[in-house]
Formats: sequence, structure tokens, C-alpha cells
Amino acid sequence: MKKFVPVLCLTLLTTLALAQDKKINVIVFGAHPDDCDNDAGGTAILFSKMGHNVKFVSLTNGDAGHQDKGGGELAKIRIAEAKEAGKRFGVEYAVLDNHDGELMPTLENRLKVIREIRKWNADIVIAPRPNDYHPDHRYTGILVQDAAYLVIVPNVAPDIPPLKKNPVFLYSEDGFQKPTPFDPDIAVIIDEVFDQKIYAMAAHESQFFEWLPWISGKLDNVPKDEKNRLKFLADWRANAPNETTLESLKKWYGDSASATKHAEGFEICEYGKQPSDEEIRMLFPMLSK
Amino acid sequence: MKKFVPVLCLTLLTTLALAQDKKINVIVFGAHPDDCDNDAGGTAILFSKMGHNVKFVSLTNGDAGHQDKGGGELAKIRIAEAKEAGKRFGVEYAVLDNHDGELMPTLENRLKVIREIRKWNADIVIAPRPNDYHPDHRYTGILVQDAAYLVIVPNVAPDIPPLKKNPVFLYSEDGFQKPTPFDPDIAVIIDEVFDQKIYAMAAHESQFFEWLPWISGKLDNVPKDEKNRLKFLADWRANAPNETTLESLKKWYGDSASATKHAEGFEICEYGKQPSDEEIRMLFPMLSK
Amino acid sequence: MKKFVPVLCLTLLTTLALAQDKKINVIVFGAHPDDCDNDAGGTAILFSKMGHNVKFVSLTNGDAGHQDKGGGELAKIRIAEAKEAGKRFGVEYAVLDNHDGELMPTLENRLKVIREIRKWNADIVIAPRPNDYHPDHRYTGILVQDAAYLVIVPNVAPDIPPLKKNPVFLYSEDGFQKPTPFDPDIAVIIDEVFDQKIYAMAAHESQFFEWLPWISGKLDNVPKDEKNRLKFLADWRANAPNETTLESLKKWYGDSASATKHAEGFEICEYGKQPSDEEIRMLFPMLSK
Amino acid sequence: MKKFVPVLCLTLLTTLALAQDKKINVIVFGAHPDDCDNDAGGTAILFSKMGHNVKFVSLTNGDAGHQDKGGGELAKIRIAEAKEAGKRFGVEYAVLDNHDGELMPTLENRLKVIREIRKWNADIVIAPRPNDYHPDHRYTGILVQDAAYLVIVPNVAPDIPPLKKNPVFLYSEDGFQKPTPFDPDIAVIIDEVFDQKIYAMAAHESQFFEWLPWISGKLDNVPKDEKNRLKFLADWRANAPNETTLESLKKWYGDSASATKHAEGFEICEYGKQPSDEEIRMLFPMLSK
Amino acid sequence: MKKFVPVLCLTLLTTLALAQDKKINVIVFGAHPDDCDNDAGGTAILFSKMGHNVKFVSLTNGDAGHQDKGGGELAKIRIAEAKEAGKRFGVEYAVLDNHDGELMPTLENRLKVIREIRKWNADIVIAPRPNDYHPDHRYTGILVQDAAYLVIVPNVAPDIPPLKKNPVFLYSEDGFQKPTPFDPDIAVIIDEVFDQKIYAMAAHESQFFEWLPWISGKLDNVPKDEKNRLKFLADWRANAPNETTLESLKKWYGDSASATKHAEGFEICEYGKQPSDEEIRMLFPMLSK
Amino acid sequence: MKKFVPVLCLTLLTTLALAQDKKINVIVFGAHPDDCDNDAGGTAILFSKMGHNVKFVSLTNGDAGHQDKGGGELAKIRIAEAKEAGKRFGVEYAVLDNHDGELMPTLENRLKVIREIRKWNADIVIAPRPNDYHPDHRYTGILVQDAAYLVIVPNVAPDIPPLKKNPVFLYSEDGFQKPTPFDPDIAVIIDEVFDQKIYAMAAHESQFFEWLPWISGKLDNVPKDEKNRLKFLADWRANAPNETTLESLKKWYGDSASATKHAEGFEICEYGKQPSDEEIRMLFPMLSK
Repeated sequence: MKKFVPVLCLTLLTTLALAQDKKINVIVFGAHPDDCDNDAGGTAILFSKMGHNVKFVSLTNGDAGHQDKGGGELAKIRIAEAKEAGKRFGVEYAVLDNHDGELMPTLENRLKVIREIRKWNADIVIAPRPNDYHPDHRYTGILVQDAAYLVIVPNVAPDIPPLKKNPVFLYSEDGFQKPTPFDPDIAVIIDEVFDQKIYAMAAHESQFFEWLPWISGKLDNVPKDEKNRLKFLADWRANAPNETTLESLKKWYGDSASATKHAEGFEICEYGKQPSDEEIRMLFPMLSK
Repeated sequence: MKKFVPVLCLTLLTTLALAQDKKINVIVFGAHPDDCDNDAGGTAILFSKMGHNVKFVSLTNGDAGHQDKGGGELAKIRIAEAKEAGKRFGVEYAVLDNHDGELMPTLENRLKVIREIRKWNADIVIAPRPNDYHPDHRYTGILVQDAAYLVIVPNVAPDIPPLKKNPVFLYSEDGFQKPTPFDPDIAVIIDEVFDQKIYAMAAHESQFFEWLPWISGKLDNVPKDEKNRLKFLADWRANAPNETTLESLKKWYGDSASATKHAEGFEICEYGKQPSDEEIRMLFPMLSK
Repeated sequence: MKKFVPVLCLTLLTTLALAQDKKINVIVFGAHPDDCDNDAGGTAILFSKMGHNVKFVSLTNGDAGHQDKGGGELAKIRIAEAKEAGKRFGVEYAVLDNHDGELMPTLENRLKVIREIRKWNADIVIAPRPNDYHPDHRYTGILVQDAAYLVIVPNVAPDIPPLKKNPVFLYSEDGFQKPTPFDPDIAVIIDEVFDQKIYAMAAHESQFFEWLPWISGKLDNVPKDEKNRLKFLADWRANAPNETTLESLKKWYGDSASATKHAEGFEICEYGKQPSDEEIRMLFPMLSK
Repeated sequence: MKKFVPVLCLTLLTTLALAQDKKINVIVFGAHPDDCDNDAGGTAILFSKMGHNVKFVSLTNGDAGHQDKGGGELAKIRIAEAKEAGKRFGVEYAVLDNHDGELMPTLENRLKVIREIRKWNADIVIAPRPNDYHPDHRYTGILVQDAAYLVIVPNVAPDIPPLKKNPVFLYSEDGFQKPTPFDPDIAVIIDEVFDQKIYAMAAHESQFFEWLPWISGKLDNVPKDEKNRLKFLADWRANAPNETTLESLKKWYGDSASATKHAEGFEICEYGKQPSDEEIRMLFPMLSK
Repeated sequence: MKKFVPVLCLTLLTTLALAQDKKINVIVFGAHPDDCDNDAGGTAILFSKMGHNVKFVSLTNGDAGHQDKGGGELAKIRIAEAKEAGKRFGVEYAVLDNHDGELMPTLENRLKVIREIRKWNADIVIAPRPNDYHPDHRYTGILVQDAAYLVIVPNVAPDIPPLKKNPVFLYSEDGFQKPTPFDPDIAVIIDEVFDQKIYAMAAHESQFFEWLPWISGKLDNVPKDEKNRLKFLADWRANAPNETTLESLKKWYGDSASATKHAEGFEICEYGKQPSDEEIRMLFPMLSK
Repeated sequence: MKKFVPVLCLTLLTTLALAQDKKINVIVFGAHPDDCDNDAGGTAILFSKMGHNVKFVSLTNGDAGHQDKGGGELAKIRIAEAKEAGKRFGVEYAVLDNHDGELMPTLENRLKVIREIRKWNADIVIAPRPNDYHPDHRYTGILVQDAAYLVIVPNVAPDIPPLKKNPVFLYSEDGFQKPTPFDPDIAVIIDEVFDQKIYAMAAHESQFFEWLPWISGKLDNVPKDEKNRLKFLADWRANAPNETTLESLKKWYGDSASATKHAEGFEICEYGKQPSDEEIRMLFPMLSK
């Protein structure tokens, strides 16, 4: 796996992290085991390499998204793949036991999200917007929105101490235009870790090499050997920044960011803490020019 | 399949049926695809052979009860097996798309039961008691209880015409003692069709030769060839009448019933029509001495 | 209306009531507008005549039980009939806005029951057993059971002060045998007010002279003129005591009770206060020999 | 009915349809029996005349929207009117048994929508946006959105084979401005079938000549004779294109479209297939200049 | 309390009100006891002083928002504070018994909102937008939206007569930008009653001097004496108009409105009546120049 | 604490336990923090002393049962008291975050019970019967019943490995007579640990010395000093065996059991494993004569 982790960079980042007084705690929510990876995997690796703590939480167990398998059998595969992906990303990976394709914005699920955020003592919470093509994605967005603020209310979920402050809640990037186009308030260059992101995502074999190609009608294109699979996945899941993301990159990294090949964008949700630019730089230390 | 259907008997029964003015419509509810078969399969064959109409309805799709498979994959297997079993029993077999292990007594499910009963224009409705070892069985019992009477109320489910009269609701036999032991108000000798019952049940391969042996710790005992499988199943699922069932058999068939090897018992539910003995003989023409 | 209220008796009872230090508050729950009347109407008249307070609460608005009408139109008829019946019984009559045929044992409904009991400051709560032929009746039984004890817990429904003590919860009489036959711990002779009970029940015209005869197949038997309607209803809804009720009557009234023509029985629910015989006599002053 | 169907046009369109290799399957969802008609009735007639398959599905049974009637009685009227309207439109018309005014975005309802789409093997799915004045309309919008994508997932509703591809999901036209104004990506001239649309809509007598005039305070304006009723309805429910619809019409039909009197607009939902202009022309063959 | 109610103004306004033919009925919904006050308290005082009727309804009992207390104990404090605040505002104040932090857009809650609006015979309904930082606020917005139109449908909640016309539904002001920024179609100068608004809000002691300072980290800044508390609250909760509110003020009051210190803005919801400017002036008589 | 643990006995029991090959895992469910203690506390101490593993699980957080406090504040007190009680009993004590007084038999709660049973690898599961005076108790009974059998189904809760065999499910003792009186199939003498049981129960100060005395009207009788409190509690919560329990004790311990002062009885639930007497002796090693 060495090739995915340029040694020099790792050292440098770790040093920076050690220089900091405090670990940053990042929690990413996705609907299915592989969604967090796609949305924030590169950023997660960067945080992790700098010594910060990242957790991925899939709100469903992925027990529906497959052409041949299903139910508990599939869930167990998905959980195992998520554990392996977590190792490759350098993050903790939790898979909650809700049926795939059936996630609803219930009070029960909201409380599960609140508990995850509190137990991770999160500074940053990342989730999809409540507008996306899959209902599970949309309801993940709503559930995480609905956890904002309540994470600091002591009488809510009194068995877990509340956070001291409302975290920054971020939406992960999507291409949807309505009701408003995605607005990348923050954008992170992930070029240096893109290979590692792809390698980590590849742990979700039943997703990226079975189900998603099948549903996209390109199952026959999936290579058999691992090396070509990684290339296939890297081509398919490239994170080329669009125009608005480029603008955000330049804001945070300067003009040199124009050459960025892979980036992940995040929009600040209005329901969490509204950080200043300075606070964003402290929360996203990889943005430092 | 001939061996399972003694020709003489079939002819006789059919003749009797033809002599009747009206077909009797029987609907049996079970929680899983194979429950109706177990509970009322022999009686169903007898009705069917006499020219009456029998429908089996499984309220769940059986997508959880297996050691290796699950979800939609398993549901599709279960549906196919139920269709095949239906053919062998001579009944219609419907499998509703509720998750196995998750059946709840909701209004939605109650209305599905009401619609099935009405569409079948049922004279007799059979279901488990609300006390049984599996929660799906118990809630099947409650859902069918909750459909009684409402099947004749025109404003309930107004898209389907109500029945003209409340059917007889029967509980299928179980061994539970509390709150009251099962009371076989009616008992049907199924000796002559027991082989056919077993053959029909054997259509549920994934149940009777995979899952149920596995969960009972006797997967290794399951024979490979069909003939021995049928014997295995016949031994395992014999319907030897117990003392109270024997008493009921004698009431309906006379003393010769003491020699019965296989019988199915039914208890009259207090929430449907309360038939007189004479009415029971008309509804269960196989009881005629 | 004079004929239904023997003047002497009324005077006597009122005097007795005035002699008491405290009014007894009775609340009766039924599923449909007319159920309370049937179950406890005679007893309610007796309480009312003695100066005590009785309230009838129908948990549904009766918007389904009719052959021609339905929905809000029917609900409005049922509410108006209930108001009129309340006047004739001498009780308050509330009709909650739940759909008929759809009553479920939800927390929301339980809290409505708790609030009714508390606002009435009830000493006695009467409801059907959770076993009866109509699901709405059964769930009325469960909802009222589930309100017992919680009516005295201050943190439950904190907007309404809790009762100081758990009331006596009683089941109204039914004929069902399982899981246990109805046990009339208390039985009240209603001979002297039976005519008034029938007259009051007759206010539910759409029930007793339209829907219930229709569903029972005797719509053609319903007389047109009021006098014969009352007779029709009195014959149909006679409360002749059965053997166990007679035994109870004798316990409370002495042997002369054998001549009772109409009585209403009540079984003590184990989840409310368990009154001694003496306490029962105080709560049911009409039992005094 | 001849006058509503200009013969020449019909012949021409039918010929075009026959020349096509494949029928186009269109399914339209509305909240109440009459909503689909209003939203897409003209377009439906055009599809139908060309030999394609159109189905209207009302997610509620319309059992609340009336000043005098309600419940099952009203639902039965509404179902009968919908059947008649379906005949006049040349489409299949289904009315699901949910209470009017109580439609909720439950998993159960979502699955019903998924099954309808699959069973119709839909190429095009039309529904209101989730912003509209009536909560049933909004939740219809959400339910249909939530069915998008899941219609192609085999493990969801495994009893019905999934579609091979995600259909195009379209919103029907409305006048609401927030969060975004309606954007008619596609607009269909219905001038030639407008009279037939009105005639078909007129089948919903209890809606267009009773309830909607009543609630709008113009019940007195409703003519008695059928001819004037049609005129009344045509004036009231004219589909005069607004500015943005006109622009869309010109895009698809050329400048001559400026003279259009009646048009129906559709906005492409981002959660279904995103068709190219060419694909839109294939899916909407009436757009061909 | 005299100092908060300039006598002259009160007299004048009352006179104006008496000159009117009809009382205007205003109902304001908030999620927690104190939300209505913040959102529309000044406007409410103005209406009340002019002789119109205002009701505040908190959809939850506020039993979670506190650092030390909780449950029924806290709810009882909150209810008492709301009653006191109501007196100070000159409005009726209702607190519904839903758990704070757990408000869900259920049918039950929607019906409660419908009943409140009907019983108040509301001309104007005010509620938060469905986008706000607290999930209870958002679901309050959705519940009130979902009541619009249904308040005039007779079959919905048939126990309470429907309104004759759909009221004007207004959103109260917030600072959120997505999906659209708040648009103050109407803005009311509250300078003359701002002190009274603050005094009335101060009745919510457990909110404004305990919980909200605690959660904002400024508990130590809360003064002990009442006079300074009012100043503290006035500084903290000033309603200085922003640019778009100023524009609206000028529209309604003329250019002199530029000097306004405190104003409350309202956006017209598209799902209720869409009033003309003239109608707005009649509904908001304090807008008269 | 020494006085509650007779040293000799402890040593003896521990030795016996060490002689066994395998630890017995016992899990007890109650509705409120203190219910398990009451129901099975003495038996739990005996198991624990013998080296076996016992866990108490309260399905609600007890946030309603108090006269002065409530909500999260009370829940936190209850959780702390449960932890202390757990130490005194020698058991693990978990408190689930459901509202007291609002426990419902949902699928979510059932799955929580299943997970607790599996994670504890339970041989014995103890819970109340579904008939008891408090709805939370009844629904605890139902939830645990509904977990039986499903704990061994791999596709249910696939994130936690299923048990290899259905445990023995036991009901804890109650005094209710309907539908059937409690039947102590198993009864355990707890004389030697009764003092320790009381001492451990006394950790629930807010229950046994505040709330329960208040609700029983004997708050004034509660002593102030710890010694007298223990005596007060011991008198109040004595476990004197009734006649049927005595019979059971004699069956398991021989005639000498007649002198038993304190005992805990358990009835075998029909939905779990049905153990033979020999198996019961192995599962309850303290029964050995």
C-alpha cells in the first residue's frame, strides 16, 4: 500500500498535527456503506494522516443494493467491506442496522445520529444534502440536520453527555441544482491521497465491482485483476473539480489550485455552527497554503 | 404424483362436491410461506378435491428464515416454492411482501387481510392463534382477528365490496397451553391425503430441507434423494392427533375415528360467525360420516 | 318522558345522594357512539339520578358504521345523536375524533384517555375487556388499561394535574369465554330505569334503527313509529342476567334479586384500585339493600 | 363524443404510433381522483391516441373533499367517476384506498407507488412537485420522488420485477414560486384535444360541479345542463400557457407555438433519468414539429 | 406595568379598533413556549391593543430545553411562564403537551393545529418557515403548512366546524438563506410596544434568564435584578430591521419608516389565501400610514 | 457491606461454580430502573456469587416516575442509581434511553432486546409477564416474548451473531390472576442473600425512598437514617412465598423449604426453550439440594 502514501507528505502532515494542541474530530454520515467514502474519503485520509480522528457512519446496512444477494447475508458482506475500507482510510467505520432502501426520518434514527455525534465529540459533521437521487441519501441529510443543535441539549438522549458546542455541519458535494445548486464553501485538494482513496473504496467490492456496475449497465467492463480494478474505479470516480469548486479551491489554496485534479467540496449547513474563515482554517488544517 | 391421490377417493369426493349447490371458499393465513401448509394443508387438499376453492396467504415473504440467504433473493425463492406448493395442494398461493421477522399489527396490514378475505368471498378463514412461539405467527393471529367483522362493514376498504356475512374464523392447531390450551372444535382426518400434503409441503425446499433442519440442528439428517426426503418430512411433520383432537374426531366421524393417524384440528374464534354443528357439517363436507 | 322516570324512586335516590358527602365521578369509555349506552347506560342513569357525575366517551366518531353514509357526514350525525342521548341519560357525552374501524393503541390515544379520566376526576372507570368481537372494542379495552396507574403519575401529561389515587377500573359485560369468561364482580339491577335506558339509546337513530338492523339482516323489522321502535329496541337489547350475573346480584342485593329482569355486570380490572366489598358499596350506592 | 376527436388527427397520430417499434408507457400520479386529469389529461389523450399506454393513479380515494358526503360512500362515487373519466381519456385509472386529506409519506405508500410504476413498465412518470397548496399533493410529490431509483433495485419489492432502467420523472405544472418557480422543460400543445380533456374531466361530477365550486364559493354558477357545464369547466380550467411555458413550447414546436391556447408543462425531476432533447422527442412523439 | 403602555397610544388604538366592524383573529404557532413571543410578540401587542384577538400556541411543552430541569417538572414551569407572558402580551397562550425536541409532522399533530386554527376562527396564521436551526421549528412550519386549506374542508376534523375561508398564512422572520432568503412581504413597526414585548417575554424566566443564556455561554452575564434583566433582554433580542425589512417597512409606512428601531417581518406563505395589498392593510390595520 | 455476604456461603458457592465447566449467562429485563432488582435480585446475587454472569436491563430510563423531578435530570439520577445497584448486586446494569411511561412494542425496541440477549450470550432470559399493572411492564413482557426465537435467526439483526440456541425465557413473579395466575415453575430461596438484595435495591434512593413511598401515600414513614431505611425496605419488599411458590420450592429443595422466608418464583414462557427438570437444575445450580 506504500505507493498510496507518499512518505514525505505523511511525515510533514503528522508533524503539523502534533504541533496542534488538540485533535480535530470529524464524523461523516452516509446512507450506505460506501457513501461516506465517495463523499469525503480523500479529506478523511488527510485528516487521519495529520493525526486527527475520523469516523464514517453508514445509516443503513446496505442489505438491498445488489443484483443477486440480499438481506442479512448481504449486510454481513457490507459490514466486512466497510471494516476493511475503514482500515485503508485510517478511520473508524460503523454500519447501523437499518434496512437499505427503507431509511426513514424517525425520532429513533435521529437519536442514533445524535449519539454517534456525541460519542465522537465531533467538531465537524458531514452528510449529504436532503436533495439527492436516492431517498436514503435524502433522509440521511434530514436526520443529520435534525441532530444539529439537539446534540448540545442535555435533556435529549440524557444517557450520553451533550456536546459543549454545536459542531460545524457540512454537506458533501452533489450535482443537484434544485432548490439551490451545491455551493462548495470549503474545498479540499485530495490529489496526493486520491490513489489511497480509490484503494480504500475498492474494499467495497460488492458495491464498486458488482452492484454499481450492474445497475449502471457496465458490469462487463469491470476488470478482473486488482490493478485494473483500481484504475477502473479511479476513472469512474474521479473527483475533477467543477467551476464553483475551483473558485473555492483558489480561495483556500491560492491560484495554484487551478491545477487540482481531484477535490472534495463541502457546503456549510445553516443549522450548525457558522464558522469564520479563520475557524475553517483551524478546522481544516490541510487548507493552509 | 398419482400415488398421492388415491383415484377412487378423488372421484367420490368430486362427485359429492358437484352435488352441492355452492362452492365453499376457504382462505388460510400464515406468517411465512409454508405455515398454511403445515396448519391446514391436508384439509385444503380435501376441500380442493371436492371442488371447493382454497387460498393460502403468507403475510410475510419469508425473506429472513434461512442460514445463508436473505432479502429479496430469498423472497424470490420462497415465492417460487409457494407457487409450486400451491399447485401440488390444488390451491391458490399468495405471498405478501412484508419482511419476515418484522410483521406488525398495523392498520395497513389489517386492510390487506380484509381485502384478501373479501376478494376470496370467504366462508371460512383460518389463521394461527395470537399465542405461538414466533412473533410473526402471533401478529398474523391478531391481524386476522382484527379483520373479523370489519370484512362486512362497507365503509371499511370501500374499494372492495364487503362480504354479505361474517365468515367463520378458525384457529389452526398449536400446542400452547396458555392462556388456554388449543381446543379443536373441529377436527379433520387427513389420512388419505397425508402423502399429498407432505409432497406439497416438500415444494418449500429452502424451508423443510434447508432452514428448518438447520435451526433444529439436524441439517445432517436431511436425505439427498427426493423419496427419502418425503419420508423424512412425513416422519417429522406427522399430524398424530392428541387426546383432545381424538375426542373431536370422534364427535364428527364417530368412534371409528380412533384409528386416525393424521388429523388437523381447528378452534372456532369467538369474533367470527359462531356456526352450529349442522352449519359446520355443511362448511366441512368431509366431516360427513 | 315521564313514564321512564318513576317519580318516587327519583326523589328517594336524590335524597340519598344529597345525604352523601361527596359526588362519585364515573367515566365510561366505548369505541363507538352507542357503546357506552349499551354497556353501562342503566347504571349511568342510576348514578345520575342520585346526583353523581357520569361521562360517556366514545373513542371513535363512528364515521364508518353505516350502510349508506360515511366520513364526516356520518360523524356529525353520530355526534348529534350522542349529545341527545347524553341528555336522556343525564350524562355528559364526548365523541373523540378518531376514525371508526381504525382505532389503534397508540400513545396519543392513551394520553387522550388519561386526560379524560383526570379531567373528570374519576372514581370509577368503565371500559370493555380487550377481548370482544370488534377490533375497536378490543383496543378501547387496551387503551383504558394502559391509562390505569399512569393517571396518578404527575410527569405523564403534565398539563393536567394527576389524580390523587388510582380509580377503580371496571370491565363492562360481554359474552366471550376466552381467555376467561366475563366475571361480574359487581352487578347492578336496572329494572326501574330500563325504559329510560332504551329511550336514551334510541337517540342513536342511525345506529339502532339503521345500521345495526341492516348489518344483522333485520332492517325490514324496524318499526316506523317511535313507540314501536322503543319496544323493538327493548326486546332486542334486553339485559336479562345470566347465571353468573344472578349470583352476583344476589351477593349485592340479597335473594330477592332473583326476580331481576335487567341488570348490568362489571368485572374489576386488576390494574386499577382493588376495592373491598365495603368500598364497592360506597362507590355503587345503588347496591345498598 | 365524436366532436372531441378530430378524426383526421387521430388517424394521423395513430399511424405515427404504429410506425414506432415500441409503445411508450406513461404513468401519472395525483393525490385525488381528478388531479391527474387536470395536470396531464391533454397530454394523456395525445399519448393514448397515438397508441401508447397511459395510466392515472390517484393515491387517495377522495373520501374527504365534499361538502355533504364523505367516507366510503364518497369514495365509491369517486372511484366510479374515475373509471368513467379513464374511458373518456383513453387511459387506465386506478384509485388507491388511502384517506383523502391524510396521505403520509410512509414506506407502505412508497412501495405502492413503486409497484404501480413497475407493473406499468413506465418510461415516463408524472407527479406534482412537493410544493403545492394541499398537503396530499405535496406528499404525492415526495412519495413519487422516493420511488425514483428504487424502481430499478431488485431487492426492493422483490415480488415485482424491477424496471430495467430508471424512467424519466416529471413534475406537472403548478404556479408556486418557492423554493423555485416551476420550470417547464417540456411543454405539450393540447389545443386539439382540449375539448376532450374537458369532457373527460367532467366525468368527475362530484368534484368539478359540486365540491370545487362549493369550496370556491361559486356553487350557484354551476350550470345544470351538460353542454353549459362543459363550457363552464372549459372556462374555469383553461390551460393558457404563461410566459415560461410559451418559451418551452417554442423550443419544441417552433415559433408557430405562440398561438397555442392550451398547453401542459412538465419539469424534469433530477432524481430520475435525465433525458437529452433527442430522447425527449422520442418519449414525447407529439412534440415532433 | 404602566411604563410599557403609553396611555395615549393605547386609547387611540382602541378607538380605531372600536371603529372597525369586525375583530381580526390572529393565531401564532411556535415550537416552544417563548417562540411566538420572539417571532410576533410586538405585532401581537398591537393587535391586542386595537381590540383584536390574538392567540399564541406552543406545539411542545418545552420539557427539554434546560440545563438542570426536565420532564413534567419543567413543562409545568413553562406552562406557568406562558400563562404569565400571555397576560403581559394581552393574548391567550396555549401550550400543547408534546415533548420538546421530539415534535414530528404526524397526522395527529396536524389535526391539533387544524383544530386550534378553527376554534380561533383565524384570519391570520403565523408560524416559522420549515427551514430553521431547530428541528422542532422546522416541523412546526411543516405542520402549519399542512393545516392550510384543510382548515376549510368539512370532512377533516368533522367535530369542529370548518373555516369559511382559508386564512392568510404567514411565516415569521428568520435569517436563513436557503433555499430562499426570508422575504418580508409585510413588516410591522413595533417601536412603541417594544418595551412591553420585552417585559412580556421576560415572563419566560427559565428560558431567557436561565436556559438560553446557558446554552449561549453567557449565563454569567444575566443580571439579577429585574430592571437590568429587561435591559439585558432588550439588548439581546432587539428587532433591528435589516435591509429587506426596511424596504418592506417603507412600502407600508412610507419613508419615515427608515427610522424604525424595532420591526417584525412576515412572509406570505403560498399555501394560504394570497391577499392583495389592500387586504393586507385591512388585516394589519396598524400598517395604515 | 460484609454483613450482607455470609463469608462461608460465598466461598462454598464460588467453589461450586469453579467446578462447573461453563458460566451461565443470565439477563433480566425490567421496564424501569429498579424492576429487575425487585423481580430477580436475590437470584441474581446467587448466580453472581457462584461466578456466573448476570445483566439487568431497564428498557426505560425512568424519567417519569417521580413527584418532583422529571426528564433528563431524573434519567441521569436513575442511571447513576442503577450503576450503584449493579455493583451491590454483582451484576452489570444497563438503562436504555426510552421514555418512562411511553414504552411501546415497536420493532426498534424489539431489536434492542434481541441485541442485548445476543451480546450477553444468554442462557436464561427473565422478564415480566405481559399482564401487570403498569403498561411499561406489560410491553416489556411483550417485547421480550417477541425476541424469543428471533434471537437465533441469523438474518435478524445481522450485525450481531445469533445465539446458537433459543434460551430459556422466564417470567418473573407477579400476583395477577388473569388470564391465568402466575405459575412458579421454578422457585429460588433467597434467604441467605435477602439482606444483600435489600441493600442493593436501596441504591435506587429516588425510587424506594422518594417516589414509591410518595405514590403509595407513605412518604412520611420513610426513615432518614440508612439502617432504618434498609429495615423499612426489607419489611416493605419482603418476598414471602405464597402457597404455589411454596409447592415449587418443595419440589426443588425438598420439604425443608417450608421454612423459607424469602423466595423468587419464575414461570417458564412457552416461546423459549422448554427445559427438563434436569436442565433446570443445571441452569439454576442453586437449586441443588
